[in-house]
Amino acid sequence: MRLTSYLSECRNLVRDELRTMLPPDTRWTGGLYELMLEYPLRYGKALRPALSIAICRALGGCLSAILPTAAVLELYHNACLVHDDITDHSHQRRGEPTLHRKHGIPIAVNVGDGMLALVMQPLLENIERVGLGKALRILEIIARMARETAEGQMIELNWVRSARWDHVDSDYVRLVYKKTAWYSFLAPIMVGAVAAGQADLEVRKLGHITIPLGIAFQIQDDVLNLSADVHAYGKDSFGDLWEGKHTLILIHALRIAPPDDKLAALRILAKSQPDDQANQSCCECKSHEDVRFLRDLIERCDSIHYARDAAQQYANLFRRRLHAHSKTWPPSVHKDFLYELADFTVNRTH
Amino acid sequence: MRLTSYLSECRNLVRDELRTMLPPDTRWTGGLYELMLEYPLRYGKALRPALSIAICRALGGCLSAILPTAAVLELYHNACLVHDDITDHSHQRRGEPTLHRKHGIPIAVNVGDGMLALVMQPLLENIERVGLGKALRILEIIARMARETAEGQMIELNWVRSARWDHVDSDYVRLVYKKTAWYSFLAPIMVGAVAAGQADLEVRKLGHITIPLGIAFQIQDDVLNLSADVHAYGKDSFGDLWEGKHTLILIHALRIAPPDDKLAALRILAKSQPDDQANQSCCECKSHEDVRFLRDLIERCDSIHYARDAAQQYANLFRRRLHAHSKTWPPSVHKDFLYELADFTVNRTH
Repeated sequence: MRLTSYLSECRNLVRDELRTMLPPDTRWTGGLYELMLEYPLRYGKALRPALSIAICRALGGCLSAILPTAAVLELYHNACLVHDDITDHSHQRRGEPTLHRKHGIPIAVNVGDGMLALVMQPLLENIERVGLGKALRILEIIARMARETAEGQMIELNWVRSARWDHVDSDYVRLVYKKTAWYSFLAPIMVGAVAAGQADLEVRKLGHITIPLGIAFQIQDDVLNLSADVHAYGKDSFGDLWEGKHTLILIHALRIAPPDDKLAALRILAKSQPDDQANQSCCECKSHEDVRFLRDLIERCDSIHYARDAAQQYANLFRRRLHAHSKTWPPSVHKDFLYELADFTVNRTH
Repeated sequence: MRLTSYLSECRNLVRDELRTMLPPDTRWTGGLYELMLEYPLRYGKALRPALSIAICRALGGCLSAILPTAAVLELYHNACLVHDDITDHSHQRRGEPTLHRKHGIPIAVNVGDGMLALVMQPLLENIERVGLGKALRILEIIARMARETAEGQMIELNWVRSARWDHVDSDYVRLVYKKTAWYSFLAPIMVGAVAAGQADLEVRKLGHITIPLGIAFQIQDDVLNLSADVHAYGKDSFGDLWEGKHTLILIHALRIAPPDDKLAALRILAKSQPDDQANQSCCECKSHEDVRFLRDLIERCDSIHYARDAAQQYANLFRRRLHAHSKTWPPSVHKDFLYELADFTVNRTH
C-alpha cells in the first residue's frame, strides 16, 4: 500500500533527524537522551511528521525546509505519550512495557520533560533554514499547540475525576479538538503549509480542513481500544473502560441504555482504576466483572457501530473539503498520501 | 532588611505579570490555569525573577524589558517544583501539601506540562518588546537552561537509583551546576544582562560569575533539609535522607566515617523510600531507625559544618568576583541587592 510505504519512509527520515538533535557527547547526561529515544525507536506510525512533510511537499516546499520541524512534532508526540502513559496508568506502549513501568515514574516524568525541553532549539535553528518570518510563525503554532494539548488533557482528567456523565457528543468533539486534533493534525498541517510558503489565511484554512480528520482519528482510537487485536494494537485493551474515559462510544451507550443499566454503569464508572494508587485507599476499584458489564452494555447498545459511523462521516467530510481545496495543486505522491488519509484513519488497526 | 523587601517587591510584580499571561476566558480549560497558579501564589522567595530584574536594572535596563521574561523564569521554576515533588515523593511544598498529594499524580504531571507550554508565548512576544536580536538570545538561553536542568535531574535520579556512592565533591558540584545553578542563577542573570543590552561575551562572563552562588545556594538547601525549623522551611525535613540524595553532606560523612559505619550507611542507602511505590514490592524500605542512623553519622562526622564552610567559601568567591566585575556600575538598589545575595544565600532559613 502506497500510504504505508510513505509513512515508513517518513519514519526513517525522522528517526535520523532526531538522532542529529541529540548532543554528540552524552557522558554527563545520565542516560537522558538514550531514554528519550526509547519510544521513537519503537514502531510508531510517524503520522504527524508524515502529515507535515506531505503538505509541505504537496504545496511545492522542499523536504529540508520541514524535516527538522516534523521531527520536533514526533518528539513532542512521544513526550506526550510518556507523560500520558503515567497519567493513564498504562502498561503497554507499542507492544512493550511503558517507560514508567520499566524505569519508574520519577525517571519517566523527567524524560518527558527533557523531550519537551529539546523541542525549542531546532525550532530556533529554523531561522537559518527557512528564514525568520516562517520560523517565528512555526514557533507561534507550536506554542499554541502545547497550550491546547495541556488544556484538553486537563478537561479529560477532570471529567474522569468528577465521574460526571452528562456530556453530549459535541462536548466530546470539543475535547478531542483540543487534546488530539491540535497536536496531531492541525499543527502538523499548519507548520507544513508555513514551511511551503503559504500565507496566513491559507494556513488557517488548511488547519480548519483537517479538524474532522482529527476527530475521526480519535474515534477510531477509541474503537480500537475496545475491539483491537491486542498484538497489533500494542496498547492496553479496554484501558479506556478501566480508566472511565469519556469516549463517544460510552456517551452513546449511556444515552440509549435502559435506566437500570445506565444506573449500574454510572455506579461502575464512579469507581476508580485499580492502578490509581492515589485513590486506592479511599475508593472502591473497578473489577473485571465491572468492565465486562460495560463491554456488554456497549455491545447491546451497538455503540461501536455508532462510533464507526461517526468516524466515517468525519473522514468523508475531510475528504470532501480536501478535494474542494486542493484542485489546483499539481499531482504528486504527497497529495496522494493526503487523499488516502481519510480511508487509513478509519480503517487502521493500530 | 533591604534584600527581603526587594524580593517581596519583585514577587508582587511577577505575580501580577503571571496573571496577565493566562487566558482571560478559562471556561474550556478544565481548571488548568487555576492549578498552574497554585504554587506561585503560595509564599515563594521569587529569587530567580529578582535576579533577572536586579541585573537588568543595575546595568541600566528598564523593568518592562525584563519583567515578562522574569515571570517566565518563575513559571518555569514552579513547573519544575510540581514535577520534582512527584519525582521526590515530597509531601510538603511552601507549608502546604504538594500538588500531586492534593490532586493526584495525573493532574500534577499535566499541570507541570501546561506551565512548560505557557513559557513560549511571552518569550516570542519579547520580539515586540525588546527587539528581535535580544528576544532570540533570550530564547536560546531558555532552551539551553531547560536541557541542562533535565540532564541534571536525570544524573541525580540515576545516582539515587543505582545507590552508587563513589562520588567525590567535584561530582556533586558538576551535578548542582546542571540541576540547580543553570536555571536558578545562570539563566536569570544572563537573560537580565541580555535585556539590558549587554554583548554576548559580557553576558557569558556574568553567567560564569554566578556559578559559585548557585553551588552555595544548593549546599545551603541541603543543610536546611537536615537542620531547618520545619515550619519556616515549608518542605519535608530529612527528605534528602529518605530519598538517598547525594548531598555534599552525605558524601563527606561517607568519606570520613569508620569502615563499619560506612558499610552500615551504604546498606541503608541501598534501601528504597517507603513512598516509592514502584519499588515497594521488590525492595526493602528505609525505616525511621535507618534515617536516624544516617543523621547520627552525619553529626559524628561534623558533615553539616563541613558543608556550611564549603557554602561560605563559594559565596565568598561569588562576592569577590562580583566586586571585581561591577566596579564601573553606577550605585543603585539593584546593585546593592546583588551584593547582599552572598550573605542571604548562606544565611537563609527557607
